Amino acid sequence: MAEELSFPTGLGTSTPETISLLGKDLAADLMGKVGFGELAFWLVAGRRPTAGEVRLFEAVLVALADHGFTPTAIAARLTYLSAPDSLQGALAAGLLGGGSRFLGVTEDCGRFLADTLVDAGTERDYDVIALEAVRKAREAKKFVPGLGHPVHKEQDPRTPVLIAIAEQEGLRGPHLRLFEAIGRVHPQVLGKKLPLNGAGVCGAALADLGLPTDLLRGFALLARAAGLLGQLAEERRRPIANDIYRTVDRNAVYEPRED
Amino acid sequence: MAEELSFPTGLGTSTPETISLLGKDLAADLMGKVGFGELAFWLVAGRRPTAGEVRLFEAVLVALADHGFTPTAIAARLTYLSAPDSLQGALAAGLLGGGSRFLGVTEDCGRFLADTLVDAGTERDYDVIALEAVRKAREAKKFVPGLGHPVHKEQDPRTPVLIAIAEQEGLRGPHLRLFEAIGRVHPQVLGKKLPLNGAGVCGAALADLGLPTDLLRGFALLARAAGLLGQLAEERRRPIANDIYRTVDRNAVYEPRED
Amino acid sequence: MAEELSFPTGLGTSTPETISLLGKDLAADLMGKVGFGELAFWLVAGRRPTAGEVRLFEAVLVALADHGFTPTAIAARLTYLSAPDSLQGALAAGLLGGGSRFLGVTEDCGRFLADTLVDAGTERDYDVIALEAVRKAREAKKFVPGLGHPVHKEQDPRTPVLIAIAEQEGLRGPHLRLFEAIGRVHPQVLGKKLPLNGAGVCGAALADLGLPTDLLRGFALLARAAGLLGQLAEERRRPIANDIYRTVDRNAVYEPRED
Amino acid sequence: MAEELSFPTGLGTSTPETISLLGKDLAADLMGKVGFGELAFWLVAGRRPTAGEVRLFEAVLVALADHGFTPTAIAARLTYLSAPDSLQGALAAGLLGGGSRFLGVTEDCGRFLADTLVDAGTERDYDVIALEAVRKAREAKKFVPGLGHPVHKEQDPRTPVLIAIAEQEGLRGPHLRLFEAIGRVHPQVLGKKLPLNGAGVCGAALADLGLPTDLLRGFALLARAAGLLGQLAEERRRPIANDIYRTVDRNAVYEPRED
Repeated sequence: MAEELSFPTGLGTSTPETISLLGKDLAADLMGKVGFGELAFWLVAGRRPTAGEVRLFEAVLVALADHGFTPTAIAARLTYLSAPDSLQGALAAGLLGGGSRFLGVTEDCGRFLADTLVDAGTERDYDVIALEAVRKAREAKKFVPGLGHPVHKEQDPRTPVLIAIAEQEGLRGPHLRLFEAIGRVHPQVLGKKLPLNGAGVCGAALADLGLPTDLLRGFALLARAAGLLGQLAEERRRPIANDIYRTVDRNAVYEPRED
Repeated sequence: MAEELSFPTGLGTSTPETISLLGKDLAADLMGKVGFGELAFWLVAGRRPTAGEVRLFEAVLVALADHGFTPTAIAARLTYLSAPDSLQGALAAGLLGGGSRFLGVTEDCGRFLADTLVDAGTERDYDVIALEAVRKAREAKKFVPGLGHPVHKEQDPRTPVLIAIAEQEGLRGPHLRLFEAIGRVHPQVLGKKLPLNGAGVCGAALADLGLPTDLLRGFALLARAAGLLGQLAEERRRPIANDIYRTVDRNAVYEPRED
Repeated sequence: MAEELSFPTGLGTSTPETISLLGKDLAADLMGKVGFGELAFWLVAGRRPTAGEVRLFEAVLVALADHGFTPTAIAARLTYLSAPDSLQGALAAGLLGGGSRFLGVTEDCGRFLADTLVDAGTERDYDVIALEAVRKAREAKKFVPGLGHPVHKEQDPRTPVLIAIAEQEGLRGPHLRLFEAIGRVHPQVLGKKLPLNGAGVCGAALADLGLPTDLLRGFALLARAAGLLGQLAEERRRPIANDIYRTVDRNAVYEPRED
Repeated sequence: MAEELSFPTGLGTSTPETISLLGKDLAADLMGKVGFGELAFWLVAGRRPTAGEVRLFEAVLVALADHGFTPTAIAARLTYLSAPDSLQGALAAGLLGGGSRFLGVTEDCGRFLADTLVDAGTERDYDVIALEAVRKAREAKKFVPGLGHPVHKEQDPRTPVLIAIAEQEGLRGPHLRLFEAIGRVHPQVLGKKLPLNGAGVCGAALADLGLPTDLLRGFALLARAAGLLGQLAEERRRPIANDIYRTVDRNAVYEPRED
């Protein structure tokens, strides 16, 4: 069966002489002239960010790149131990932990803030909007994404810094302002003061940058890809995965299933 | 069994008040002050790159980020079609194609150049070293990594641009010079002129940046992570994966296995 | 810090002389005496299945193993093309498509039936329960999982066969009966007759086998692992992934993003 | 551009009324009549195995399914902890450790035996062939795959059982016989007696079953998929991944990179 096929793309294409990316000549217009973070933003958003947007965006990526021995870092190291011939497999294994619980907060928070702003209609007082949103979350017995941290119980040091950078660059928009308002008003509803965490403030900042909320997790994954490469480079130089494995195996205790 | 455990790391650690990364205060010293590409380099190499090194390094990442509808981009899109709830799975599926054939050239080329330089001992004439290396590869019936391209049969436009950037930044070192020499001398051995491809020149540049050759593939994967996010963002906006799937399925022909 | 660690497991443990699995001696009690499907059931359910349960369970796995050129099969083949040195990566890439849209129906259907039976309380007439469930789904503008198929518009041939096997083995329980009732009553609500699909009937059968609904997707993944190995073995013998890739690439059309 | 496309397959195809797999009617000929292990063999080998072949094949899968807290099992559990919404991601992460070091022995051993038999030409005395092969490996400073085990230092209990099953089924062929010969003669060359390990004997048995040596790793992965589902089911019921993570994190020690 003869058929006409057409697969449209606005990303990369090439001819024998040129490579185009985003409608630009890759070699002549992009290499050496556009930063890597800038390109990542452009690829997803479909528009070139300003210098201020790049600074805020890269600050988010830097904030999310590594968090020490997270479950994803350990999973990547263990996979590298088992299959050292496949660096891509170890990296992929680490990224696969980028789901709802650990890396998902950035996306969940951005989406929560965006949805809340839509629901708020014409209301312009962020404290009013925040109070209502926290109340509704509490009634639905849901957590407010971005609130609280297992280690940084008083304050997450990334939060004020990222807000300050957004302010400096003229990018402290409605999502960040609403997030800050949640930080102010939630004790009225929850009866205790929780810190605004770093993953959450990153989601707020990405949303203020106009990036699609459905893809915010993607930026956390990109940041983490760099962090995981750091973990794998360290594992190669100063391995610990075998020790982790042996620690677990050595302390395995057989307990038959009770049911 | 009580035991003493110790898992050393020079990457990230945290206390309730601070987050450290690479021995720096993440919030005070890194966010907003260090670029994302700069941090990725630092995480793997264990040292902060200079501004010139960052420029060359990011030019490599930009060169490798996207190549249009590669097998890995298509695999990522098909996975996103099947499991749209798991962006991390689609990204991981795309990265898993980062093996020997497509994304591996960068690492293979960097390693080939590094090994050749070691074998060359005190010889300092790059054309002599290159001639010997191409001859040995030919005798062993092996391809010289970085030589030839299925589309860019005359010249890969990325190659001269990356060499020029390295030259501008004072980073045109032995790996790039040897790679250029291979470009000059190989026709004497192979009887035809092949282009120096972009993946190869990126491997040479990364090696000249002092990055470990065993991990060069990792930078290709990091670059590709950004490209794949672009592909997935486009798939979300203007999907083609279902068309690809249906095209294949519609043209499936049952042919029993012949043996 | 010295600490006591204990990691309990009811699965595998070993000493220098023996390997235990599920409290049995692997070599003496399991190898050659227990089938692979039987072991998979046992590992997840924590109890050894009867011969009839094994037959129904393996019929489900056989039904779900391969569906020709699905998006997951194509993704696995493309990944194998890119990284032929890493069979595990190609298999993993294929499995990563086992999410909500394609492979998820089995789990969704099993869970829908289980939840519906709980909601039904003391009602024992499956047609009454089914009618109420389809009505509620329609009101909530949700699809009833397991209803309808893009190709098998009249009847999915797997459905009556699996029900017959369950009947033969005395395992046609409440989930399958409710599923059949949905097949009878849904036209009253939806105004058209849709087939009960194979993925759905497999979910119903797995639920009747007492397997945890949260893990039903896992059995679809296990079945698909065998199918993907078949796809990769065929790709090795009679490759098509490069043709698929070139078909897409050849028909790529640059269209700048419109917004 | 109109074009003729054709993607041949000998696996699955479907029409509105029927689903075919391997040239058979899936519903009428396979479901309830063919076991899951049998189908997996058939899909890869392209021929239906005999009952004896199925028994040996399934004994291999049972032998390889689970080994307790391996690095891959721990990686899968940690990934499930991080992203509990994506069972496929946790399974894939576990399988990605199926590379050269842990799961690769089965394939390496099968290939080593097959290659050795080819090199042996017309020599028919397995002890002579084995002696020469062990000598060559030692001269090349390579390990003989399948020899030695970190835990089962005297004997791996799986080895004699699998050989006995093969003997019972008339399937103790040249690969198993050569493997046994290696077990007899290697102390002459290596100066110490090592056990024939279970992963190795499985590779030998799969090779005697006529399965392609390039895909032997695939069967280890299929077996492990079942084991990993067992691990994930247990993690859901009696979680330990968070304890593992906290144990590592709690004992993290910052040590700056020394170079």
